[in-house]
Amino acid sequence: MTAKLKTAVLGATGYSGLELTRILLRHPRLEKPFLLRRSADNGSATDLADVFPALSGNGGYPLHSLSWPSLKQQGVELLFLATPHEASRSLVPQALSQGLRVIDLSGAWRLKQEQHRAIYNFQDADAATAAELTERAVYGLPELNGDRLANATLVANPGCYATSVILALAPLLKAGVVDRSRGIVSDSKSGVSGAGKEPTAKTHFVSVADNLSAYSVFNHRHVGEIVEQLQLGADELIFTPHLLPIPRGILSTIYLHLNREMTPLEVESCFTNFYSGKRWVRIFHTPKLPQVQFSLQTNYCDLGFCLAEDGRRLVLISCIDNLLKGAAGQAVQNMNLMYGWQEDEGLQ
Amino acid sequence: MTAKLKTAVLGATGYSGLELTRILLRHPRLEKPFLLRRSADNGSATDLADVFPALSGNGGYPLHSLSWPSLKQQGVELLFLATPHEASRSLVPQALSQGLRVIDLSGAWRLKQEQHRAIYNFQDADAATAAELTERAVYGLPELNGDRLANATLVANPGCYATSVILALAPLLKAGVVDRSRGIVSDSKSGVSGAGKEPTAKTHFVSVADNLSAYSVFNHRHVGEIVEQLQLGADELIFTPHLLPIPRGILSTIYLHLNREMTPLEVESCFTNFYSGKRWVRIFHTPKLPQVQFSLQTNYCDLGFCLAEDGRRLVLISCIDNLLKGAAGQAVQNMNLMYGWQEDEGLQ
Amino acid sequence: MTAKLKTAVLGATGYSGLELTRILLRHPRLEKPFLLRRSADNGSATDLADVFPALSGNGGYPLHSLSWPSLKQQGVELLFLATPHEASRSLVPQALSQGLRVIDLSGAWRLKQEQHRAIYNFQDADAATAAELTERAVYGLPELNGDRLANATLVANPGCYATSVILALAPLLKAGVVDRSRGIVSDSKSGVSGAGKEPTAKTHFVSVADNLSAYSVFNHRHVGEIVEQLQLGADELIFTPHLLPIPRGILSTIYLHLNREMTPLEVESCFTNFYSGKRWVRIFHTPKLPQVQFSLQTNYCDLGFCLAEDGRRLVLISCIDNLLKGAAGQAVQNMNLMYGWQEDEGLQ
Amino acid sequence: MTAKLKTAVLGATGYSGLELTRILLRHPRLEKPFLLRRSADNGSATDLADVFPALSGNGGYPLHSLSWPSLKQQGVELLFLATPHEASRSLVPQALSQGLRVIDLSGAWRLKQEQHRAIYNFQDADAATAAELTERAVYGLPELNGDRLANATLVANPGCYATSVILALAPLLKAGVVDRSRGIVSDSKSGVSGAGKEPTAKTHFVSVADNLSAYSVFNHRHVGEIVEQLQLGADELIFTPHLLPIPRGILSTIYLHLNREMTPLEVESCFTNFYSGKRWVRIFHTPKLPQVQFSLQTNYCDLGFCLAEDGRRLVLISCIDNLLKGAAGQAVQNMNLMYGWQEDEGLQ
Repeated sequence: MTAKLKTAVLGATGYSGLELTRILLRHPRLEKPFLLRRSADNGSATDLADVFPALSGNGGYPLHSLSWPSLKQQGVELLFLATPHEASRSLVPQALSQGLRVIDLSGAWRLKQEQHRAIYNFQDADAATAAELTERAVYGLPELNGDRLANATLVANPGCYATSVILALAPLLKAGVVDRSRGIVSDSKSGVSGAGKEPTAKTHFVSVADNLSAYSVFNHRHVGEIVEQLQLGADELIFTPHLLPIPRGILSTIYLHLNREMTPLEVESCFTNFYSGKRWVRIFHTPKLPQVQFSLQTNYCDLGFCLAEDGRRLVLISCIDNLLKGAAGQAVQNMNLMYGWQEDEGLQ
Repeated sequence: MTAKLKTAVLGATGYSGLELTRILLRHPRLEKPFLLRRSADNGSATDLADVFPALSGNGGYPLHSLSWPSLKQQGVELLFLATPHEASRSLVPQALSQGLRVIDLSGAWRLKQEQHRAIYNFQDADAATAAELTERAVYGLPELNGDRLANATLVANPGCYATSVILALAPLLKAGVVDRSRGIVSDSKSGVSGAGKEPTAKTHFVSVADNLSAYSVFNHRHVGEIVEQLQLGADELIFTPHLLPIPRGILSTIYLHLNREMTPLEVESCFTNFYSGKRWVRIFHTPKLPQVQFSLQTNYCDLGFCLAEDGRRLVLISCIDNLLKGAAGQAVQNMNLMYGWQEDEGLQ
Repeated sequence: MTAKLKTAVLGATGYSGLELTRILLRHPRLEKPFLLRRSADNGSATDLADVFPALSGNGGYPLHSLSWPSLKQQGVELLFLATPHEASRSLVPQALSQGLRVIDLSGAWRLKQEQHRAIYNFQDADAATAAELTERAVYGLPELNGDRLANATLVANPGCYATSVILALAPLLKAGVVDRSRGIVSDSKSGVSGAGKEPTAKTHFVSVADNLSAYSVFNHRHVGEIVEQLQLGADELIFTPHLLPIPRGILSTIYLHLNREMTPLEVESCFTNFYSGKRWVRIFHTPKLPQVQFSLQTNYCDLGFCLAEDGRRLVLISCIDNLLKGAAGQAVQNMNLMYGWQEDEGLQ
Repeated sequence: MTAKLKTAVLGATGYSGLELTRILLRHPRLEKPFLLRRSADNGSATDLADVFPALSGNGGYPLHSLSWPSLKQQGVELLFLATPHEASRSLVPQALSQGLRVIDLSGAWRLKQEQHRAIYNFQDADAATAAELTERAVYGLPELNGDRLANATLVANPGCYATSVILALAPLLKAGVVDRSRGIVSDSKSGVSGAGKEPTAKTHFVSVADNLSAYSVFNHRHVGEIVEQLQLGADELIFTPHLLPIPRGILSTIYLHLNREMTPLEVESCFTNFYSGKRWVRIFHTPKLPQVQFSLQTNYCDLGFCLAEDGRRLVLISCIDNLLKGAAGQAVQNMNLMYGWQEDEGLQ
């Protein structure tokens, strides 16, 4: 019987951090995670249950300040960063130099190409190290890059929107059946937790309820991830995010043209073959389509489609829980593969 | 001083019927409308305030049974039908033969072309009359067909989704700047009142809340209206409706390619020129975009856009209140033009 | 024909201020209101439509900085304050000294008794003037104090919760049928706009949606207003506010014991007699009960009740739109009475 | 190592039935539950995943028709009834005569006293058996009746509202500190799943969203349970349920007078002593109060309170997830105690 792994979470006080902490707490391979306060956190919270009273009553979840010696003393081997990208950008080099493995839930290390990274405007203290780590980082979408996780020291956990779009498109693009010259559209809609816990005019209940709005048209940060991972030209994809009046969940409606006439069965086979043996992708049998509710509180990505009678025009529906398959759940899935465990341990 | 017009509403007990009744009640050119019970209505309601307690307290809104002699006796000249399309299909010939003018809010008389009408599967008792009325009916989108309303005896009030899509696309198509060969996508989202008042599994609160779902992909009834009015080929448009967890409001996100490079200013001019003098269309100055909330409780169609840096790929946002500009408000706007009144009387 | 009244609104950029502005704009007795920016407002907004895009398209709503000479030059006679209570407390003495009449929507001048005012902790520059104005201010609940409005120079517009509770209880207390020794409970629930437009952790969509919470138990600011107006002892009322996952609307469920056995008809008569001729109170005929939706977007206070079989235990339901009868609508109702107009002008 | 228990669920297609099935599927002491279709169910569903697509992808959940021989053949020992009370009333005698133990989630067997049962208007085929079973049934609130579960053959699982109210009041009533002569008020609010899955005008999204309504004032079915379990006189409690615009969750705000002055610490001790060692009740430390969100997706009953300065007037807040502690979770908690297992097995 092997010893249990010791993990730490920096940023447990955010929405993704909370979900992550909850999963880690019940994961059979782990000791109780060591919880770290973000420097920006309200200093008064000394226990995660003070921030999230839903955690009350099961004993304490003490919050600690980050200190590398203290992590070493605790025997922490794996560090989860649920921090803003600026923080992750500066913390990761330090963490790796301490010998820790890192799963970073922010956008800090997802992008290989400079032109996509520009939107983040990173200010790296040590550019050479940043370049080296950018190269080394594994984009942690296990269904695509699962074989690279076993040896990964730095995993860049994908963006929530990006997860929903990449998983929907990858099988068709790999099969070479997409007419890329006609362009792909992803009309994506997300619940409000995707915007983070910071109170703003945009996340005020009265601004969101009874409403729907598009935002960041043509310039959302996740576009870079999508086109890099799918090896698309930047002008081959239009991605439009929308803010839904729901707490969590993403539905992406994706439009594309096939470069040859296909049958629904062929399209479905394309998906089922690609995701054969993949535990966390569900293919819906046409005409059934995923809905946001179906994957809530799970680590599933649900995929469905509708093919026009001409056999050429295809609508894909992709749903995830943005805090699970779009963040914390996927992070744990990545951890499982980094340590050679079953892909669904702790996630069932 | 001219006498006030006498109107009747059949189907005041539905969502659109209620909104219509409310507007008619405060319209300065009208006598109090004569309210007619649908045959399918619960027989026990004798007053509209029994069905909608929000109407309590301002005196009565008696509901009558439909009888042509009684309408004549009341001096009714204009009949609004807020009825299912089957009912409208059989009632309109009778109403016209009584000398009434009719504004029908259903889909019964919107479609000229047989192939688009097929989805309704109408069972006409008198095919010749039906054909004649189909020809005579004016599709009541005042911004496009306003000049044909003065003499109209039968106005087919547009569908809610169709209104949002047609008004967004008409200026660009008329200007000839759309690359139709690359296809147009309308990803549309509607509040639940668009599904009607009938309780079903799909309109149950628990099914809708915290959810989003696509439905009727490639086969929604409103597609026919849109392609007919815009003179598009059926395969030039993909229209995907979604059910939003809000009571009312529609947002359509529309994707198209321009056939030449344009500037944002040119695109905006295309809209502002087309809608110059049109009271109920608002053009948002880029980068501002309409949101569902902005046009709620109004008769506005709000239009905005975002043009890619390449000057070719265009995203349009179109918002309406499905019960007003998408139904009752537009019906009143049509009435105003049928009788030569200001387009916004009773709608401010 | 008389000249139209010139009004100004300070704080049009808040929720109540917006509703107030909308009503004033369509009020037949008024010129277009002069809109004043609050000093705390984002300096960049020069037009109210920039803050509330729902106002787009009908021409401008310029926002001005407050300046007494400028108000005089504009001919403003009546000033509405939709400002925080601290601001109202310091602005009202200045405004009155300029000869303006004032309707203040904040809590600054509602309370006569020092022990109730303590919760606000006012810091008055001139205590004598403050005391004099406190005495002079009319608590602007027109159904109770309507006869004092014609000569009022300072009207303290009631709190939203207070309006819903006072209107429900006043008829029974005046009739002397309440067993006050057994205590009265008001369990009140409000939509989120009641908490104001400031983004906070409590008004974040994710904190409010799918939730309900009680707050300020035993120490909400509106308790003072209620007990003062109803001449209750502080320990005769328990008032518990709750935050509802809806944008607007209040429902108060009120529990009391009658001091003698009554019939439902007697209870109803108590209400209908008290509110005879009152335009903005609707009494629901038992067993019908008001719901939040029924009075939304109206100036009504809806009242209903349920009497136990013992004829002693009574449950009252009171609903208002917190932004209308609970704020802006009532302010306009007060204005109408201050100037001798019909109580419902501009409010229908 | 003992063999796993074989259970069956009748009514898995309802909201409570689905939650129950989900828990049973992951319960370590159980074989996969045998799922039974209700006779009223749509005959077309042969798998629970057809009814709830959220269950897709983990293999089948076949739905069977009820047949006693088939249950015996399957080795079923424990039957859960998630059926309407009429169905439970007629099925329980049969099930017990087959030697099954039964946990009934309906109201069929909760009430001992004829006057409380009258509201259900049961039509028993065999009155003597019904009387005997009524006597034998254990009201399955484990925190109160846990010691009677080990030998129970028929457990009447409590109502959701009743659970929230009884657990809040029991400690204080047992301690004898409630001034019952002044009456107790429970103002309770529930999410829509409490109204069941049947689509009705009341559960239509448009009727519920942006709304709040009280219903069944003075005559809700759960009142009988509450007063029986707490040994209150019927006129000592006023219970008012409200329909919240949320899918699930209950918050009860309860008002009472203490018969002697107490300190907050004494009140808290009363709760912590009573629930010492009880796994599924959490006491909130004043001034913290439970909110609906905190207990969602858990089997907790969260209790908090606020004591007036006079030490006499007390407000209690009690929150549960109506589908878990208010139904399916509590049913599993009961099962755990019936079989001598840990109270939280399968529920963590």
